[in-house]
Amino acid sequence: MITAYSCRCGRTYRPTADRWRCDCGGLLDLPPAALPWPPRRDTASLWRYLDAGDLPWREVTMGEGGTPLVEEDGGLRLKLEYASPTGSFKDRGAVVLVALARALGATRLVADSSGNAGAAAAAYAARAGLPAEVFVPARTSEKKLAQIRGHGAAVTVVEGSREDTAAAAMARVGETGAFYASHVHNPYFHEGTKTFALEVFEQLGGAVPDVLALPAGNGTLVLGAWRGFEELRAAGLSGGVPRIVAVQAERCAPLAAAWAAGRPEPEPVRAALPTVAEGIAVAAPARGSRVLEAVAATGGGVVTVAEDEIAAAHAALAARGLWVEPTAAVPYAAVRRLRAEGSPLLGGTVVAPLCGSGLKASL
Amino acid sequence: MITAYSCRCGRTYRPTADRWRCDCGGLLDLPPAALPWPPRRDTASLWRYLDAGDLPWREVTMGEGGTPLVEEDGGLRLKLEYASPTGSFKDRGAVVLVALARALGATRLVADSSGNAGAAAAAYAARAGLPAEVFVPARTSEKKLAQIRGHGAAVTVVEGSREDTAAAAMARVGETGAFYASHVHNPYFHEGTKTFALEVFEQLGGAVPDVLALPAGNGTLVLGAWRGFEELRAAGLSGGVPRIVAVQAERCAPLAAAWAAGRPEPEPVRAALPTVAEGIAVAAPARGSRVLEAVAATGGGVVTVAEDEIAAAHAALAARGLWVEPTAAVPYAAVRRLRAEGSPLLGGTVVAPLCGSGLKASL
Repeated sequence: MITAYSCRCGRTYRPTADRWRCDCGGLLDLPPAALPWPPRRDTASLWRYLDAGDLPWREVTMGEGGTPLVEEDGGLRLKLEYASPTGSFKDRGAVVLVALARALGATRLVADSSGNAGAAAAAYAARAGLPAEVFVPARTSEKKLAQIRGHGAAVTVVEGSREDTAAAAMARVGETGAFYASHVHNPYFHEGTKTFALEVFEQLGGAVPDVLALPAGNGTLVLGAWRGFEELRAAGLSGGVPRIVAVQAERCAPLAAAWAAGRPEPEPVRAALPTVAEGIAVAAPARGSRVLEAVAATGGGVVTVAEDEIAAAHAALAARGLWVEPTAAVPYAAVRRLRAEGSPLLGGTVVAPLCGSGLKASL
Repeated sequence: MITAYSCRCGRTYRPTADRWRCDCGGLLDLPPAALPWPPRRDTASLWRYLDAGDLPWREVTMGEGGTPLVEEDGGLRLKLEYASPTGSFKDRGAVVLVALARALGATRLVADSSGNAGAAAAAYAARAGLPAEVFVPARTSEKKLAQIRGHGAAVTVVEGSREDTAAAAMARVGETGAFYASHVHNPYFHEGTKTFALEVFEQLGGAVPDVLALPAGNGTLVLGAWRGFEELRAAGLSGGVPRIVAVQAERCAPLAAAWAAGRPEPEPVRAALPTVAEGIAVAAPARGSRVLEAVAATGGGVVTVAEDEIAAAHAALAARGLWVEPTAAVPYAAVRRLRAEGSPLLGGTVVAPLCGSGLKASL
């Protein structure tokens, strides 16, 4: 599955362990991939959907993927991404990046994260025998820090914004030549998160839902899910893609602001207020224009939820047996609000993920 | 799947919401069940293995079961039971008990637990709309308490032994007529845990492992797995059952003491020392003789591991990307020690579960 990176400036690159951006500074992308279908039968993990003969994935996998899709009332289905090896959906992308790092001969790995991606990177790096350094913002929960350190990764806590954390990680990558296991910059992360879409399709009996309500900070799940449903359509397996409703916390909502203003590119949020949705508090999403493109192309929208709506959704989920971290309640909060408003964004089959475990939160 | 309870005294009972022991005081059992095979295809959850038309399981399920089986070196496979909706293998039994409670018309539920079973009972009771009370011993981790309370269950912390906690729960059941969702007393719990065996069989491509190394406190997984493999054999699907190696913490090891002494019944441990393996610190396992019978019938054994062996196993698992609570490292600790000793108990394909998430521990 290793194919050339491309940049919008026109350059292309054969993947190497130290390549994570274009020489022009731009973001790297992957070309559309042909979907191998039907999925392989020799694994129940997300690797069943990937043509990964050139990656040493069997040495890295922990059986990630295959999370439950449970039915709620009114056509809503919730996908329990928190029932994953490290407790969040980030396993989908992290396992692909670490397998890629191994295939490219990397000898060390750097990641930056609000917590869940760092925990996933640390766990899979440990499994692959790659030393890892993880940069996290100061507000990261204690449980996530314990988890990252437990896997033997070196943790650096960075004061300031999520972007300051990323900058520190990039500087370290520059100093060391480490593989940058970035869920934002490395497009192979979306090869992992796209399997979310492929599983939903299979779990619905070979059908595409009408709506996907997805959390959006950096938008790694929006971009992966969009890619997955587009691949299904391109393969002639489905007639369309779901409307993607991207959901942000009101207190840090650069994508929602751009969407409302009709701008193709988000403006960085200055001095965002703290939110319980720490996992999506991203003031300047690097792939923001692409996330907005996904939403527009699918006929969806970007909406925000307030802190009290997140708290109410969290409690409602717990009352249904579902134990998530506050960030993970964000899409469900949006579904509740949009339903109450009778929003035309909803309707038909709605799928929302529950991305992170409640056991990770500082509750 | 609702069939009559039986007691060794000869009495039988049609299950009712308030029945949890024999009038003679004895433990209730279920007759051997005919295994529906092949499993159903309309769910990926453990319900695919159960003939459950008389239980409202679709209203209760969170897609439990289907946990990954990952390969380690030397023929060892680890089953990630912690990648379950509530973070432990107890979901397998709890969902069956709660569905049964609903089928029997229960209006409230009581459970007692060292933590994980209580969290599972609270979550599924919430999903089923049944008020729940959970009794826990004083050493229960904060994360588990937060989880139980988060699902709306009333928590009573009981000073003293695990048995004191059970006694308090039984007294409450007596006062209120609640359904006693006991993983020890209600044999339907094993209908859930038996699916562990059925999944292993399928994940090994229709083969029985040579050895199962299982943690044993009350022995709910030993008894369930034994039942599952016996059902496979009785159905003509396999030629034998795996050797069951039951593993206890050295500091609280009534089953190991009985096994070593050739006694068919464990003696209660008086003044057990505290162990990091809180989840299996059971001084007087109610079904102890049955656990010993399972071990003997399969040609296995009961072994103990010391605190430092548990800690070393926990660290070794973390270094392989696997994040578990200390109790969950116990079977792996035994596998490491038995291997180092060249024990004849091992050999061939060995399967061990990782029963509870590291995110649950007070680390």
